[in-house]
Amino acid sequence: MNVAQHIQDLSCEAKQAANIMANLSSAVKNDLLCRMADALESDATHLQHENEKDLNAARANGLAPAMIDRLVLNDDRIKAMADGLREVASLPDPVGEVTGMWKRPNGIQVGRMRIPLGVIGIIFESRPNVTADAAALCLKSGAVILRGGSEAIHSNSAIGTILKAQLTALGLPSGALQVITTTDRNAVSELLKRDEEIDLIIPRGGESLIRFVSENSRIPVIKHYKGVCHTFVDADADADMASKICLNAKVQRPGVCNAMETLLVHKDIAETFIPRIAHEMEQNKVEIRGCSVTCSLAPSAKTATDADWDEEYLDLILAVRVVDNLDQAIEHIRQHTSLHTEVIVTNSYANSQKFVRSVNSSVIMVNASSRFSDGGELGLGAEIGISTTKLHSFGPMGLEDLTTRKFIVFGDGQVRP
Amino acid sequence: MNVAQHIQDLSCEAKQAANIMANLSSAVKNDLLCRMADALESDATHLQHENEKDLNAARANGLAPAMIDRLVLNDDRIKAMADGLREVASLPDPVGEVTGMWKRPNGIQVGRMRIPLGVIGIIFESRPNVTADAAALCLKSGAVILRGGSEAIHSNSAIGTILKAQLTALGLPSGALQVITTTDRNAVSELLKRDEEIDLIIPRGGESLIRFVSENSRIPVIKHYKGVCHTFVDADADADMASKICLNAKVQRPGVCNAMETLLVHKDIAETFIPRIAHEMEQNKVEIRGCSVTCSLAPSAKTATDADWDEEYLDLILAVRVVDNLDQAIEHIRQHTSLHTEVIVTNSYANSQKFVRSVNSSVIMVNASSRFSDGGELGLGAEIGISTTKLHSFGPMGLEDLTTRKFIVFGDGQVRP
Repeated sequence: MNVAQHIQDLSCEAKQAANIMANLSSAVKNDLLCRMADALESDATHLQHENEKDLNAARANGLAPAMIDRLVLNDDRIKAMADGLREVASLPDPVGEVTGMWKRPNGIQVGRMRIPLGVIGIIFESRPNVTADAAALCLKSGAVILRGGSEAIHSNSAIGTILKAQLTALGLPSGALQVITTTDRNAVSELLKRDEEIDLIIPRGGESLIRFVSENSRIPVIKHYKGVCHTFVDADADADMASKICLNAKVQRPGVCNAMETLLVHKDIAETFIPRIAHEMEQNKVEIRGCSVTCSLAPSAKTATDADWDEEYLDLILAVRVVDNLDQAIEHIRQHTSLHTEVIVTNSYANSQKFVRSVNSSVIMVNASSRFSDGGELGLGAEIGISTTKLHSFGPMGLEDLTTRKFIVFGDGQVRP
Repeated sequence: MNVAQHIQDLSCEAKQAANIMANLSSAVKNDLLCRMADALESDATHLQHENEKDLNAARANGLAPAMIDRLVLNDDRIKAMADGLREVASLPDPVGEVTGMWKRPNGIQVGRMRIPLGVIGIIFESRPNVTADAAALCLKSGAVILRGGSEAIHSNSAIGTILKAQLTALGLPSGALQVITTTDRNAVSELLKRDEEIDLIIPRGGESLIRFVSENSRIPVIKHYKGVCHTFVDADADADMASKICLNAKVQRPGVCNAMETLLVHKDIAETFIPRIAHEMEQNKVEIRGCSVTCSLAPSAKTATDADWDEEYLDLILAVRVVDNLDQAIEHIRQHTSLHTEVIVTNSYANSQKFVRSVNSSVIMVNASSRFSDGGELGLGAEIGISTTKLHSFGPMGLEDLTTRKFIVFGDGQVRP
């Protein structure tokens, strides 16, 4: 197979299909997603059979147990995929929404109407559920091309086949959902050249995947690099609240990108707060890597190196630094931020305002755990990813972020003088 | 000079400056822009002296008179640049605006606040006024790196120096405005690699420049390719209105991207409308290239070739096709669109709605001239360009399009269960 031609063909097919999907009523799109959900559940046995092929290959290749676990499609996970599709069906349809309309002095009325971005390309690793989750969001607003990892090829392909059959059953273009099943390594490079057909690329996976994609793509890329999330405990923070927020942010689920990685503590509260939080973290098996002041206040802490301030541990490890004031905290964050999520715990109105205004990461919180930095928790419904690049979308991306706006103009014969 | 190092240095300087610019009050930014305007006018003699160097080189190199004319900085053009800066100063500041705020069941309040995109890189050709126009918009929302054409190097450099002096005079970081003055051809390639510092690249110029930039950039690019604008005259259009709109769209200023290039006429009105519009166009020295039906109704028309339907003439030439119905008009537009601007002239409510809903170019108009497709005319104030790519911005881009939105969250101690 000529992989360049293959990718071109499926990209063109997706673009044509996207034009049709763009003009469907919400009712038809929602019906489609619900049928897809039902089909995943009723074809669970077949799906698990195909999934077993990936699991066998993974075991034969000696993949780590954690990696193998991420591949598994058990009944619960299939139900979760189906529920995800139904949830997207239940979300309000952003397509067609007019966001503001105004009149010009010459009488023309000008507005902006949401339309689908078009064709979204998603390049991801491991978890086969991404195939269904991403398809749901993208099909509600256009078309999608999915390229999963080779380790999940049978599972992804089976999910794709089941979902595409529902498009066909409703007389909709099955080209709106493309699952790339060739294992040719050039498929991704070829995909990244199709800027005539694909409107956006979203890579989901490790840093090397994201770097490869962003360095080789002619299509705009929305990146989600990593989450080095900071929590700053201000001088007049409520210590109980601060401790509760810090523990939640660090230990509730340490392996995800919205977990706290660095704790900054105001020097005026450090003497009481550091020993307390160090003790509580210790009870939760968290290793502390502190600055010299932190280490003097929490003898069990290890000494942090420069590298610790940029580390996304994704583990029960926490970097802790005592700062002189809010400005130093903000400066520390500015230097080490991954633009994901930063939290201030404070009772100072002025400091909360200053923090919210002057820290320009994608999510800024006052007196809440960084673990809320998630499309669902923030109220977007399902989430296609968390953008740490600023163009188009910044932070958790929901359905609305897969649209753009065209101008609409209503006149009654106006011409330009 | 090591050009890679030079570009890296100025990009880093711009990024640092952008952090400071992001937190300035609107009053300070507006004061800065007004001072810049005054300085351009008071330094006009020096500016024209530098401009003369470019003009001399252009004449020595045998540049076409039209190209030389675009380079000239006479008193009127300097005043227009200054007025442009003052106009941007008068626009509402989008930075800090909160677009919606909602409460989640757990009590956290979530909103989205506009922040500057950051550092914008603009690569442009010819007209030195772009230096001032683009600087105004970008400085009101961050920092900017400008790389103009070598033919305007002395003019661009002089404008940059005058504007930077005003940043310094107000104690603001002069790094917020970078004018690349090296003529090293690698400067652009190096700039396109600085994705750590630059948030967006906007190329303004010919198709080859735009293609080079989009194929070589690691930074997101907002492209403005060309404008093949269509006007569809529906069966029950008011013929007087249709003729007025078509003439305005074609002849009022044929050399710009929002001029009409293709006229589509419903077959039911063709017999009367084609002879009329052909006659009127002829009186305005417009050459018509028509489909066979058009040619039979307007004997002076030339026969259009396939290439005519994709041509951006930027001249007194018009392609004309008779179509069977609205669907055929929409299909023609879909195949030949440059995603710029499409117009329908109709009195049918249903057809106007269908056209607006189903044609997804960046500006869709009913009963108005395509010449209104412009940031100023649509009410955005000044315009940084017209995007024909859908990500982030689609259509004319104003100040708001140089911002992005961060999430802000106000809690009172919430943690995730």
